[in-house]
Amino acid sequence: MRKLERSIVAVLLGLLAAPVLAQTTVLSAARIHTMDTARPLARAMAFDASGRILALGDADELQARYPQARRLDVGSATVVPGLIDAHAHVGGLGFAMLGADLVGTASKAEIIERLRAKAAQLKPGEWLLGNGWDQNDWPQQSFPTAAELDVVFPDRPVWLSRVDGHAGWANSAAMRAVPRDLAGNWQPDGGMIQRDAAGKPNGIFIDNAMLLVEHARPAPDEATSERALALGMQAAVEHGLTGVHDAGITLAELRRYQRLADRGQMPLRIYAMADGNSDALESLCRNGLYRHPSGRLQMRAVKLYADGALGSRGAAMLEDYSDDHGNRGLLVMSADELAVASAKAKRCGVQVATHAIGDRGNRLALDTYAHALGADVAGDHRWRVEHAQILAPADLARFAQLHVIASMQPTHATSDMPWAQERVGAQRIVGAYAWRQLRDSGARLAFGSDFPVESVDPRLGLYSAVSRADGEGKPAGGWMPQEKLNAFEALRGFTLDAAYAGFGENELGSLAPGKRADFVVLAEDPLAVPDARLRTLDVRATYVDGRPVYEAGKAASAAAP
Amino acid sequence: MRKLERSIVAVLLGLLAAPVLAQTTVLSAARIHTMDTARPLARAMAFDASGRILALGDADELQARYPQARRLDVGSATVVPGLIDAHAHVGGLGFAMLGADLVGTASKAEIIERLRAKAAQLKPGEWLLGNGWDQNDWPQQSFPTAAELDVVFPDRPVWLSRVDGHAGWANSAAMRAVPRDLAGNWQPDGGMIQRDAAGKPNGIFIDNAMLLVEHARPAPDEATSERALALGMQAAVEHGLTGVHDAGITLAELRRYQRLADRGQMPLRIYAMADGNSDALESLCRNGLYRHPSGRLQMRAVKLYADGALGSRGAAMLEDYSDDHGNRGLLVMSADELAVASAKAKRCGVQVATHAIGDRGNRLALDTYAHALGADVAGDHRWRVEHAQILAPADLARFAQLHVIASMQPTHATSDMPWAQERVGAQRIVGAYAWRQLRDSGARLAFGSDFPVESVDPRLGLYSAVSRADGEGKPAGGWMPQEKLNAFEALRGFTLDAAYAGFGENELGSLAPGKRADFVVLAEDPLAVPDARLRTLDVRATYVDGRPVYEAGKAASAAAP
Repeated sequence: MRKLERSIVAVLLGLLAAPVLAQTTVLSAARIHTMDTARPLARAMAFDASGRILALGDADELQARYPQARRLDVGSATVVPGLIDAHAHVGGLGFAMLGADLVGTASKAEIIERLRAKAAQLKPGEWLLGNGWDQNDWPQQSFPTAAELDVVFPDRPVWLSRVDGHAGWANSAAMRAVPRDLAGNWQPDGGMIQRDAAGKPNGIFIDNAMLLVEHARPAPDEATSERALALGMQAAVEHGLTGVHDAGITLAELRRYQRLADRGQMPLRIYAMADGNSDALESLCRNGLYRHPSGRLQMRAVKLYADGALGSRGAAMLEDYSDDHGNRGLLVMSADELAVASAKAKRCGVQVATHAIGDRGNRLALDTYAHALGADVAGDHRWRVEHAQILAPADLARFAQLHVIASMQPTHATSDMPWAQERVGAQRIVGAYAWRQLRDSGARLAFGSDFPVESVDPRLGLYSAVSRADGEGKPAGGWMPQEKLNAFEALRGFTLDAAYAGFGENELGSLAPGKRADFVVLAEDPLAVPDARLRTLDVRATYVDGRPVYEAGKAASAAAP
Repeated sequence: MRKLERSIVAVLLGLLAAPVLAQTTVLSAARIHTMDTARPLARAMAFDASGRILALGDADELQARYPQARRLDVGSATVVPGLIDAHAHVGGLGFAMLGADLVGTASKAEIIERLRAKAAQLKPGEWLLGNGWDQNDWPQQSFPTAAELDVVFPDRPVWLSRVDGHAGWANSAAMRAVPRDLAGNWQPDGGMIQRDAAGKPNGIFIDNAMLLVEHARPAPDEATSERALALGMQAAVEHGLTGVHDAGITLAELRRYQRLADRGQMPLRIYAMADGNSDALESLCRNGLYRHPSGRLQMRAVKLYADGALGSRGAAMLEDYSDDHGNRGLLVMSADELAVASAKAKRCGVQVATHAIGDRGNRLALDTYAHALGADVAGDHRWRVEHAQILAPADLARFAQLHVIASMQPTHATSDMPWAQERVGAQRIVGAYAWRQLRDSGARLAFGSDFPVESVDPRLGLYSAVSRADGEGKPAGGWMPQEKLNAFEALRGFTLDAAYAGFGENELGSLAPGKRADFVVLAEDPLAVPDARLRTLDVRATYVDGRPVYEAGKAASAAAP
């Protein structure tokens, strides 16, 4: 063959090969933990241009099978399925990020400095929001007051939530915006307004009292709300999340997500729950379960609320709180309301996910499910209890019996462990945050974070699940160490079982032929590092549908599709 | 009151108090992990003179409740229920201890030295036995030969087993004692006689070939056999064991145990299995289930044998060995023999415990059980599969379905992990040593060691169960890390679930009112130390029926009762 002919052939072959090169990728890594029990470990994975996994195996084997494929070698890194947060609030995280970040501030002076910088970006009169302050980090460890903010911000409302979300610090302009007169000696249910000797509120609002100020804030405009969603999703993918179950959104919020999805601006998958027995559920019943063609957004669940939270003693308990006799917490929706909403969901084929913290709240959720599902309990409903935090011994086995998923947040256990036993005592604590007991009983565990109540970072959840310890590894051996999971099980809660909780296990949650190439590249092997190192795993990249949505050291990727 | 009267009263009170003091003990410790889910953690435990637990609680509370009780404060130590080895061979361990200990010998010269010392204690012509050599520890890492022993022991038979128990080293006198002519080119099933170029055996016998020499040894006399049991039991209590399931004994061995029990020389509890369909099973059928009045000895189970071992490719596999095509291992008892023995056991109310290693062996055991138990499968039979080492995916769930206990040995996994996958390949290995999968399926795990095949030391089993790693922590993160247990679950396998496997959970396995005060005092908290430290937990004392049977630093206690 003459030289020219050879060149032409080469060019033609190149033209033929080019689309093939663009189509298929062979990823190779030191190890790929597939979470697929049939093949837990692989060294390489091939996926096509649409992000569909073709095969797993050894690198040589797959490169031989797909000789034209683009090669993506991540060297000594470990690949795991994309992490899914089964219970979180994307908009809430985004709004928190839009406010001033006060985490780690060492004094009120530093807070004022950060607030001034943030205020410079705001319109006159616009609320100045912030979060993350902690008086324990200050030279004087007492609660701050409105007066300290008023000096700098006499007219602009300022509202700053404490690092744990259980207290808020308002200035006088913010308190003036509250319609109800805050003076006097009244207190809201499940909360406390701090007041001076004269009965005048001093700017600190605890737990449910915070709602008085929250509700006084003007609703954010549409652009800000959309920006909050985008910020929340971006933070998620930067931490290795490829999916989030958004635990309660209105129809307006669904529309907002839809617009982002239409524009190809969803970097990860949102599995939304309609908030309460309201407009979004009504829409599901009228129009059917919702799925965006991109595969990045769906809504087919409804979030209901049995009770409140443990920290503020709002969780509904079967007996009195151990540290508050006469108080058994409260129901947020009545048994009747839960029954009506669950029956409606059942009728419409909608999955129910009920917030339940206390043992009474959980029993009510289980009773409601048993009644609503009736003889059809073994069908593929996948109804969930969100949090499932304190369970009466008799109710533990009912999750498996009723095929109810326990949607739990490992970091809640380690955040609450300093005081949880005071609330419920030595007997009831045995059924608290009882991952292992639930798993042993045959229940499925889906893991999440409840961000922004806890950090968006799923590494902290993995660490909590295996250690039951705080960031310093205390208490030694973990709190109620019998409940500890191994790293594989923790990872499974944030992958395959979270996918299952969103009816997604045929597409997501493990890396197997036919599934979506949603994965995370980690510098270390999460199944091989000491527990403490799980908190600092180095997330190198996050891929959704085979494309990077986050790469360490690079600016935010264009979201696709 | 006058002084004399006061003295008399004091004496009288003393007389009254003395028996009380002798009767009840209040033990206090930094922590007591009870393994009782109703109260996992306590600081003190009261038990009576018979060793029956009266109460658990705080030290102040129990000392107030039992003011006259003897106080036993173990300070910063941790107390856990006595460990139970659910599968071991007490006599085998004792006989190994009676031989020369060659573990850690760095050269053949050192071995000869130890053998000379041991031979000095023996009668002329008596067999010199030893175990623990490992040619990998020697300057020249090749197998030794008979000639090297013959120089020093030309007439006395010498028989030395390798550290892994899979090879034996004989001298010429021992080989002369074998009835069958060892020359030629024949080999026994599942074993190998090493021979020189002329066909003459060179002294090394692998796996089943070892039986040729074993069977040539004269039977030990009764006194030696009894001493072996005593040595084995003493070694067990020194490692924190309060019970052992002796996996296969003859009627003669039961009689030997009975004599020890009659003399109060059982420092721990033996749960014996009759060996095969033989005299001991016949005795159970004729005389009923056996229990010694001391509570230290019982026999109500029979050990059957489905197949061989994985290392020597004797385990019965459904498909060929991956590293030996055409070989699927072998059955030790035929399906018919297993069926007959199981039916007999069922008829006599005897628990069946079948050795099964390969997936075919395990399937056969499960099939046999399903057939023998028939419609009565849900009764309280507690039939067991011993080892349950390699399971076909379809058989995993059958353990729970048939209520069959998986009696497993964590150290087998870590001993076998360097070569197990070569034997069975990447697919079948997923069902190997699958503690977690079995547990997840609802099966109960009883843990043991199979000593003397593995070490008697249950700390190594705890470590293997939580780490799936060797003594150096390799491979990092453990072999098949998805199967790792947490320390509590590992401890449960060696306590409560081992007790259940021996019908003992109402008396043993956890520390709760009404149960026996069988417990271990550990310097460290096994649920709080890093995994690696489990191997070196400091066993301070072992108590059975409330009395010490081992105390660190003290000579062997008199066994009681």
